[in-house]
Amino acid sequence: MALNWVVYPGAVHTRFQHALGAVHLTTQAIEVLRTKGHGISAEEEEATTLAVLLHDIGHGPFSHTLERTIAMDVHHEQLSLLIMESLNKQFKGKLSMAIAVFTGQYPKKFLHQLVSSQLDMDRLDYLSRDSFYTGVQEGVIGSDRIIRMLEVDQDRLVVEEKGIYSIEKFIVARRLMYWQVYLHKTSVCADNMLIKVLERARYLVREQGKQLPCSEPLWHFLSRNIGYQDFKESKEHLEMFTRLDDNDIMAAVKAWAYYSDHILSFLCSGLLNRQLFKLTYQPYSATGTKEKTIRKKLLDSGKWKEEDLDYLVIRDRVSNTAYQMEKDNILIKMKNGEVHDIASLEEQVGVRALAHPVEKYYVCYPPEID
Amino acid sequence: MALNWVVYPGAVHTRFQHALGAVHLTTQAIEVLRTKGHGISAEEEEATTLAVLLHDIGHGPFSHTLERTIAMDVHHEQLSLLIMESLNKQFKGKLSMAIAVFTGQYPKKFLHQLVSSQLDMDRLDYLSRDSFYTGVQEGVIGSDRIIRMLEVDQDRLVVEEKGIYSIEKFIVARRLMYWQVYLHKTSVCADNMLIKVLERARYLVREQGKQLPCSEPLWHFLSRNIGYQDFKESKEHLEMFTRLDDNDIMAAVKAWAYYSDHILSFLCSGLLNRQLFKLTYQPYSATGTKEKTIRKKLLDSGKWKEEDLDYLVIRDRVSNTAYQMEKDNILIKMKNGEVHDIASLEEQVGVRALAHPVEKYYVCYPPEID
Amino acid sequence: MALNWVVYPGAVHTRFQHALGAVHLTTQAIEVLRTKGHGISAEEEEATTLAVLLHDIGHGPFSHTLERTIAMDVHHEQLSLLIMESLNKQFKGKLSMAIAVFTGQYPKKFLHQLVSSQLDMDRLDYLSRDSFYTGVQEGVIGSDRIIRMLEVDQDRLVVEEKGIYSIEKFIVARRLMYWQVYLHKTSVCADNMLIKVLERARYLVREQGKQLPCSEPLWHFLSRNIGYQDFKESKEHLEMFTRLDDNDIMAAVKAWAYYSDHILSFLCSGLLNRQLFKLTYQPYSATGTKEKTIRKKLLDSGKWKEEDLDYLVIRDRVSNTAYQMEKDNILIKMKNGEVHDIASLEEQVGVRALAHPVEKYYVCYPPEID
Amino acid sequence: MALNWVVYPGAVHTRFQHALGAVHLTTQAIEVLRTKGHGISAEEEEATTLAVLLHDIGHGPFSHTLERTIAMDVHHEQLSLLIMESLNKQFKGKLSMAIAVFTGQYPKKFLHQLVSSQLDMDRLDYLSRDSFYTGVQEGVIGSDRIIRMLEVDQDRLVVEEKGIYSIEKFIVARRLMYWQVYLHKTSVCADNMLIKVLERARYLVREQGKQLPCSEPLWHFLSRNIGYQDFKESKEHLEMFTRLDDNDIMAAVKAWAYYSDHILSFLCSGLLNRQLFKLTYQPYSATGTKEKTIRKKLLDSGKWKEEDLDYLVIRDRVSNTAYQMEKDNILIKMKNGEVHDIASLEEQVGVRALAHPVEKYYVCYPPEID
Repeated sequence: MALNWVVYPGAVHTRFQHALGAVHLTTQAIEVLRTKGHGISAEEEEATTLAVLLHDIGHGPFSHTLERTIAMDVHHEQLSLLIMESLNKQFKGKLSMAIAVFTGQYPKKFLHQLVSSQLDMDRLDYLSRDSFYTGVQEGVIGSDRIIRMLEVDQDRLVVEEKGIYSIEKFIVARRLMYWQVYLHKTSVCADNMLIKVLERARYLVREQGKQLPCSEPLWHFLSRNIGYQDFKESKEHLEMFTRLDDNDIMAAVKAWAYYSDHILSFLCSGLLNRQLFKLTYQPYSATGTKEKTIRKKLLDSGKWKEEDLDYLVIRDRVSNTAYQMEKDNILIKMKNGEVHDIASLEEQVGVRALAHPVEKYYVCYPPEID
Repeated sequence: MALNWVVYPGAVHTRFQHALGAVHLTTQAIEVLRTKGHGISAEEEEATTLAVLLHDIGHGPFSHTLERTIAMDVHHEQLSLLIMESLNKQFKGKLSMAIAVFTGQYPKKFLHQLVSSQLDMDRLDYLSRDSFYTGVQEGVIGSDRIIRMLEVDQDRLVVEEKGIYSIEKFIVARRLMYWQVYLHKTSVCADNMLIKVLERARYLVREQGKQLPCSEPLWHFLSRNIGYQDFKESKEHLEMFTRLDDNDIMAAVKAWAYYSDHILSFLCSGLLNRQLFKLTYQPYSATGTKEKTIRKKLLDSGKWKEEDLDYLVIRDRVSNTAYQMEKDNILIKMKNGEVHDIASLEEQVGVRALAHPVEKYYVCYPPEID
Repeated sequence: MALNWVVYPGAVHTRFQHALGAVHLTTQAIEVLRTKGHGISAEEEEATTLAVLLHDIGHGPFSHTLERTIAMDVHHEQLSLLIMESLNKQFKGKLSMAIAVFTGQYPKKFLHQLVSSQLDMDRLDYLSRDSFYTGVQEGVIGSDRIIRMLEVDQDRLVVEEKGIYSIEKFIVARRLMYWQVYLHKTSVCADNMLIKVLERARYLVREQGKQLPCSEPLWHFLSRNIGYQDFKESKEHLEMFTRLDDNDIMAAVKAWAYYSDHILSFLCSGLLNRQLFKLTYQPYSATGTKEKTIRKKLLDSGKWKEEDLDYLVIRDRVSNTAYQMEKDNILIKMKNGEVHDIASLEEQVGVRALAHPVEKYYVCYPPEID
Repeated sequence: MALNWVVYPGAVHTRFQHALGAVHLTTQAIEVLRTKGHGISAEEEEATTLAVLLHDIGHGPFSHTLERTIAMDVHHEQLSLLIMESLNKQFKGKLSMAIAVFTGQYPKKFLHQLVSSQLDMDRLDYLSRDSFYTGVQEGVIGSDRIIRMLEVDQDRLVVEEKGIYSIEKFIVARRLMYWQVYLHKTSVCADNMLIKVLERARYLVREQGKQLPCSEPLWHFLSRNIGYQDFKESKEHLEMFTRLDDNDIMAAVKAWAYYSDHILSFLCSGLLNRQLFKLTYQPYSATGTKEKTIRKKLLDSGKWKEEDLDYLVIRDRVSNTAYQMEKDNILIKMKNGEVHDIASLEEQVGVRALAHPVEKYYVCYPPEID
């Protein structure tokens, strides 16, 4: 959960726990589907659980927060796939079926949906887990019951009609977790600060030729521009990438708080000492004026120059869609055998109303401004 | 929860627990409001908690299920009030302020809203409690957080803006509990059977002059037609009413399973031996035909006569409104000081969509028909 | 939990829930033992779960409290067996293996130990359940982990060495639940009152020829002295016994509170209105004097006669043994393959210290005495 | 919990959470004591909660594991005190009373016992927290109830008699957590490896003059021998100490896994890749032979030299005392007003039996040996 612990101190659980949890739920789901008469071989079970175990392995440190900053244009699922392929060579082809399930090329498509869809085991686990560790009751879902209601119809993962309210709850819980937790304004501020730290560090290293203290793998990515093609062509990049974790970033932030660049040390000290940036969600139309006012105040303070401001004032938006129709959507199998998108059912007025993106706009800036 | 334990075996908790729980939440809410600067005297606190403690005391056995059957036209809140007034005499006026809070005549209106409104302590307690005892995760709410977000604005109970998602969750949870638990079709069947048991017993006693075995208080109401005016005029009726509880009904059902009337014994045996009636929710238009078909099958079986069928085939509807605008509605106090109905806020598309009644129709009938 | 809800209002859960829970744990235990290589056929699994499901079916209303009062000398396990044999006839021998497991005559003795021993599924379930419903944290046990640690060695149920602390915890939790919950003094008082109610009722019916109002099955047992031989010889007694439940007793208590016998109505009113008897645990030597003082005070009050006092003053003891060596004891299988009684292990000084009965003495009497 | 997450993946919670939790319990305890008539001023409350908040602030990274390795002879409570005194200067004397409570010099001694004794808020919090995050049910305690049972008698913190079973449970839970969690053999192995990493690093830096890559604060302590007197004399040491946290250690372990010293890289790689050392608890008498056998095998492997072995084979013991009589012991206030050590009460045979140290011996060594 990246830096979310600045808001919810309990949110320090690890991706490792999440991967084990998602595997656990997958095992349960496969057991349920077998009981309902859908043949899944031991090999297919292993492949699916491996795909789930490794589905996030391409995430770098602080996952979504830094994914655009460290390995510039590479999506984490592409990196997961490269790592899985590398492991597949090492284990002499034992992951071939897992890779096929992961990429959706395995004939039984519903196995892929357990790994990746709007009702995949990844989401069931992270919602339950994040709700548990933050203590935010709004995110509690009945994952046990959802899993017992899973079915397969024409090679698609579907949910039995009597599980419909558990799904409605799941969709609402996910929406609430986004606004209450993942996109909590203080958490978004901390994330923005960390992004700016990395951007400044990259600038100092690449444009100014500075020797910033940091670990070998972090230096590797700070000093180079590495894209998907590079990862494919040289094993060294992937090797360095897998050595990177949150620890490298936090060690750097701690060291850089004492570094001579005043922007870098300002941002790093702020993160370490909880002097976090501020933001208010507001209408898009108001953000322009707000940004200008803040930039002016910062200049007026005499502490900052015009070229510093891009590291200190961030105008951006967050967005969440509680439920998306059409893509990887959630299907309900009615008692009469028909299969419908949950949002298309007459009674589901609430879910239907939530099937649109909600966007919120903000300007994020240093706390001493107010 | 009346006979809901036929579906959720854990749902055998008592109204006594609920009353204690609601008092507990009220004490917390008053503490929160005091911390926020709203003066509430020790006397007002006692009055409000007494009002909460006694708010449901006018409920008869199996509460809503039998409320129209035993004390014909008398609403349970009217009976609560009569009992509170009787207690007030006994305790020499010590409940006068509690009664004023209960009836909404006390000047501080927000105290009444803690006792009775769409966000009263009664609802917070029963949702949490029923969700806990049934094990239905869909009903979990963050009552602690809701209470911490309470405020008073112009003598109205309101919720701070940052509690908005907890309220959204509360409204959705309540909706889901209705469809998943309170109006679960098997529970509705059991309730209908019990109502028919009482109707048949009343018929046998009043129309046929039978001496059905039952407790003295139950006999009192079976053999008489007692309305609000009667309760007011004679203390004996209220006295008998307070002696009645679920136990009198279940003891009667157990005895009547062996009674010579074939309808009464059929219904009572069915309840005791879990040979429960069946129903399917379906469009209103389909219920007419369904009812006719079932009545015909019952007649064709040779077991039943035309005049029996009203005890065996019930065509009815259930209805729930997740949230009602206008009446006792939930107000959000925004950071800028404005106060709005939650459903009127732009972002609350989901709650707005749910602010309409949902109705479902059914025919309920003996299981041997299928 | 009989009348324990006078202390812990949540303790109103039912024997039905407990039976389902014990079946659930048994299914898990069998699954674990199979995984460890112990062959258990589908037939044996069904027999064992049936034995667990029905192990307590011979309990009468308020179980242990009234077991000596209603069916005088008959142990509830004897009645369970008679009922199982009756069901076996009805189901044409389908319960024969279950009965063999229940009585310990089935060759695989460890299956019987799942049903009845110091570590049976009955105990695991009731401790967890009663701790949950009373909210008494002292009784929380790790039943999941205990079950995963089960093994079979030479046809005996044993526990793997690494489960040793879970067992220590289980033994201590059971001890604490006895003193904190089951033998809580207020609960013991209520139980004693109920026993005296039944004794007085029996006296009035049998010695005085009174027609006490009560249900048909309760009358059956009040008016007759029915022993094991009677149950075996006539089906009617067993039939009447199975119709009896807590409801019959509570309905009688409610009716008898208005009955003309002053002792019966005093005891029944006390139970209904929570004017419960009192007791203090004290050394045996002090109970004699205490009893005399109280009897004198009661006589001096002028309300009671000498012959009434046996219904009003109870001098007795409660006893609990946290762990019993020798009989149905708990065996630990060490990593080196040796099997030892848990209390014989060097490190288990605590369990060893608890392997003796603790007895507490008391005099129980009407509250107005103090 | 240091490296305990190698056994229990959920055990990654932080000292910060624990400090907040202990403060929360302290606030509750003070509230309870006030309700029972013990005057505690707002200033005393602040002082006590500050003392609790800061009681552990002198802990270095990986707390107990590394406390002898980094700041050689300095107990963490001495460092806590130095830091509190430094803060006291910064805040101009506002912590003076907190320091007096912390050191036991404040007149109301019972306030100190809330901060430090066998029943302090520190222990109540860490047991509950560690049990929660590991999922080990054996450690569940009823801290709510324990706190409600607190009393003060003659300036000593005591527990009301009716809380006796909650205390018995607390003592047993603490014992079980030690053996099941804190002293789990795999956790002890990881701790030993980390200690050896630091010892080897110190050797390389101090004796061999190597420039190991690591953070500035870690280098400060690796390259110097800093004792209590040094901390007192120079602010720089304390400043460097407070900049150290787990992150510095893990960053070093990650870097050193690639360092050229074969012992250091072996230990660091082992920690990172979960190739952990092994141990078995065994009688003291057996450890000598075991150690010799293992040292011989390592030499025979040709990979290691005699002088390497002290980093690879650790012969040591762990020890726990469930309850200590005499020092900071737990006192029970009986209903008759007498105050006794819990272990001296007749009924508490279990606690009495546990009031002695339990020691276990082991040899810990690289996994490839077996």
